[in-house]
Amino acid sequence: MHGYSHGVSEIVVMKFGGTSVADAQRIKRAAARIVAKREEGKRVVAVLSARGKTTDELIAMADEVSRAPDPREMDMLLSTGERISCALCAMAIHDLGHRAISFTGSQAGIVTDSSHTKARILDVRADRIKAALEEDHIVLVAGFQGVSTTSKEVTTLGRGGSDTTAVAVAAALEAEECEIYTDVEGVFSADPRIVPGARKLDAVSFEEMLDMAASGAGVLQLRSVEYARNHGVKIHCRSSFSDAPGTVVIEESETMEQPLITAVTHLTAEARITLVGVPDEPGAAARIFDALADANVNVDMIVQNEPTSAGGKAEISFTVPDEDLRIAREALEGLIGDAFTEIREGAQMGKVSIVGAGMRSHPGVAAKVFRVLADEQINIEMISTSPIKISCVIPREQVPQAVRALHEAFELQAEQTSGIGR
Amino acid sequence: MHGYSHGVSEIVVMKFGGTSVADAQRIKRAAARIVAKREEGKRVVAVLSARGKTTDELIAMADEVSRAPDPREMDMLLSTGERISCALCAMAIHDLGHRAISFTGSQAGIVTDSSHTKARILDVRADRIKAALEEDHIVLVAGFQGVSTTSKEVTTLGRGGSDTTAVAVAAALEAEECEIYTDVEGVFSADPRIVPGARKLDAVSFEEMLDMAASGAGVLQLRSVEYARNHGVKIHCRSSFSDAPGTVVIEESETMEQPLITAVTHLTAEARITLVGVPDEPGAAARIFDALADANVNVDMIVQNEPTSAGGKAEISFTVPDEDLRIAREALEGLIGDAFTEIREGAQMGKVSIVGAGMRSHPGVAAKVFRVLADEQINIEMISTSPIKISCVIPREQVPQAVRALHEAFELQAEQTSGIGR
Repeated sequence: MHGYSHGVSEIVVMKFGGTSVADAQRIKRAAARIVAKREEGKRVVAVLSARGKTTDELIAMADEVSRAPDPREMDMLLSTGERISCALCAMAIHDLGHRAISFTGSQAGIVTDSSHTKARILDVRADRIKAALEEDHIVLVAGFQGVSTTSKEVTTLGRGGSDTTAVAVAAALEAEECEIYTDVEGVFSADPRIVPGARKLDAVSFEEMLDMAASGAGVLQLRSVEYARNHGVKIHCRSSFSDAPGTVVIEESETMEQPLITAVTHLTAEARITLVGVPDEPGAAARIFDALADANVNVDMIVQNEPTSAGGKAEISFTVPDEDLRIAREALEGLIGDAFTEIREGAQMGKVSIVGAGMRSHPGVAAKVFRVLADEQINIEMISTSPIKISCVIPREQVPQAVRALHEAFELQAEQTSGIGR
Repeated sequence: MHGYSHGVSEIVVMKFGGTSVADAQRIKRAAARIVAKREEGKRVVAVLSARGKTTDELIAMADEVSRAPDPREMDMLLSTGERISCALCAMAIHDLGHRAISFTGSQAGIVTDSSHTKARILDVRADRIKAALEEDHIVLVAGFQGVSTTSKEVTTLGRGGSDTTAVAVAAALEAEECEIYTDVEGVFSADPRIVPGARKLDAVSFEEMLDMAASGAGVLQLRSVEYARNHGVKIHCRSSFSDAPGTVVIEESETMEQPLITAVTHLTAEARITLVGVPDEPGAAARIFDALADANVNVDMIVQNEPTSAGGKAEISFTVPDEDLRIAREALEGLIGDAFTEIREGAQMGKVSIVGAGMRSHPGVAAKVFRVLADEQINIEMISTSPIKISCVIPREQVPQAVRALHEAFELQAEQTSGIGR
């Protein structure tokens, strides 16, 4: 129809989030963007989320009819939102003179396990997508959902699911890249709302992105970055409201240079729990964190100190999001006197992290972080490190001050002359 | 779980329309009604429509993004509405302590042809419904939708589709009966808004119901009645707001008595088209009605008079709904001078019909109808009859008067003492 189907053209996967398909105007804008990519000669698969508030509205309806909505039915309910986005976008693309076809997660071959509301992708059987691309269709895939391999039930992937759908489809199709469109321009050296001079990053490595996502950079979901790293999918994170290039997430060897520090990230809704009197014997920590996992508590940083005397007791501290604090306490209360003697809580905590692949070969980074925070009179409550990340738990109200100080100390700000790039 | 699964219990199919699932309160009420039926010892399959205005809202969105929405994508879009109703109702049933599972049309095995937006059911492969019933589930089936046999696409059945789904599922399961819940108490001897003394009918035959549905009784869709007749499904048409029995639609032999006339029905938005100078040769009428069918004009009554002279020209008159008049005219204009010489239109028409299986053995009914209308000074413009129906096209403004006069002349009014029944 448009003459692109002869010869092999590269496949690009484009993912649009809820704000990018929130209403008819935005759906039309996404459609125009998809068509423009097609007209560049690419074959295009677009993965869409549910429109703006649709998912919240559906959840509210479920809460109205049931005190504890069944997960299987919740998936039947919530999976309708992305289907609506995809059908509408396909219609809008037709109106621009191109062929398009929308697929549900099941039709797209997104095969998952049977864990309703938090299913994991097991396989992408992309035959139907490939056939549609061969027939010169633009393919729209409903994000966030799949079909369970054993019981043929509709499943949903949980938070960040649509990003993961996009990356998984890109992997299955061996796409040139997976573009994730959001309402920000890319990944920044720090949150621009806190650090006005923050720099948009042209490229970060998977490892950096994983540590950044885990420590507060909200642009990409951890799961989708993990999937991309494991399957070698190049992610391009960019704005749906601008044509400027965003941030590319790629294998480390491909990055052009290796800066010492890439970004400063932060979290502000952290609570600390300290368990006192943990016996220094095998299995104590396992019992504690099994109980927390069973209660679906999202445990972040874990620090354990050594017992101070032979046969003595240890202290274990960890952080959880504020919203999980109550459930965590309830899950642990049954273990008092058994796995530990006392629970202490510290609310109003925050976390600041610096991330950078170059850190591996520069031993002095941690010392510099501690000195910068000390100069700012910020007390560090907990420390945890990975080969490319240093995280410090600090009082919540001092988080913005810490982010600005670290961003300046490691010279991450945008250059006056260029403004963008590194 | 509830002890009903031992022994063979009868299956009942219950269908709830859009107004019966319009909001959380109504969904809960439908759930309670379904559970009550289960607790009577029946195995229950409920077929649900989309909530109140959902379908209209989805259509409006489609019109916003596209000038001519693609039928295949329209089906992907519209089929979400019933899925939402079913998932929410399943949750509400869980909350009442019963097992329930919702199925899409595809999961329920509703196999259709590939005519998007107006698909026909070819088969119901009810294995999954049967297995769920065996496991003591109440089964919720999304109405109005299916999956095409060849291309595995989501299809919708068009207007009245959910009634047809319910009847088809009832046929496949050999259900005891198919209950259709609406906002009226059943089928009446005339529209109670026009005839205050109209009587609720306890039973009507399939043939009567077909003629009544075609001539203005809006309670049941023609298609579902046809399907029920062809597969011997007993329909029970009743109110979702009351426990009173409604109207049963059954085989004629099962009706308890054979009244002369069962009901007076009417339509008020009819237009008449008369084609003058149609050549009296084979194929002329075929060309005319092919053109109308291609334009999707819903032609109702067709009357042709004989040519007045040897080799002369005939006149063909037919009625169409007001809303189809413009398209009909456009479809016919190309045939002027070929299939006929002139188009004449009569707007502001209506139609009044009397329906009754007993009419077959009483030749004087037509004469009585004409006499009643003449006494009321109502001019009959067109007449058409079937073995159990007499329809007259009359001026629109006289329709209520005609309905009342016929209802009284054939003594259809409710008895003063009982109020209900016949």
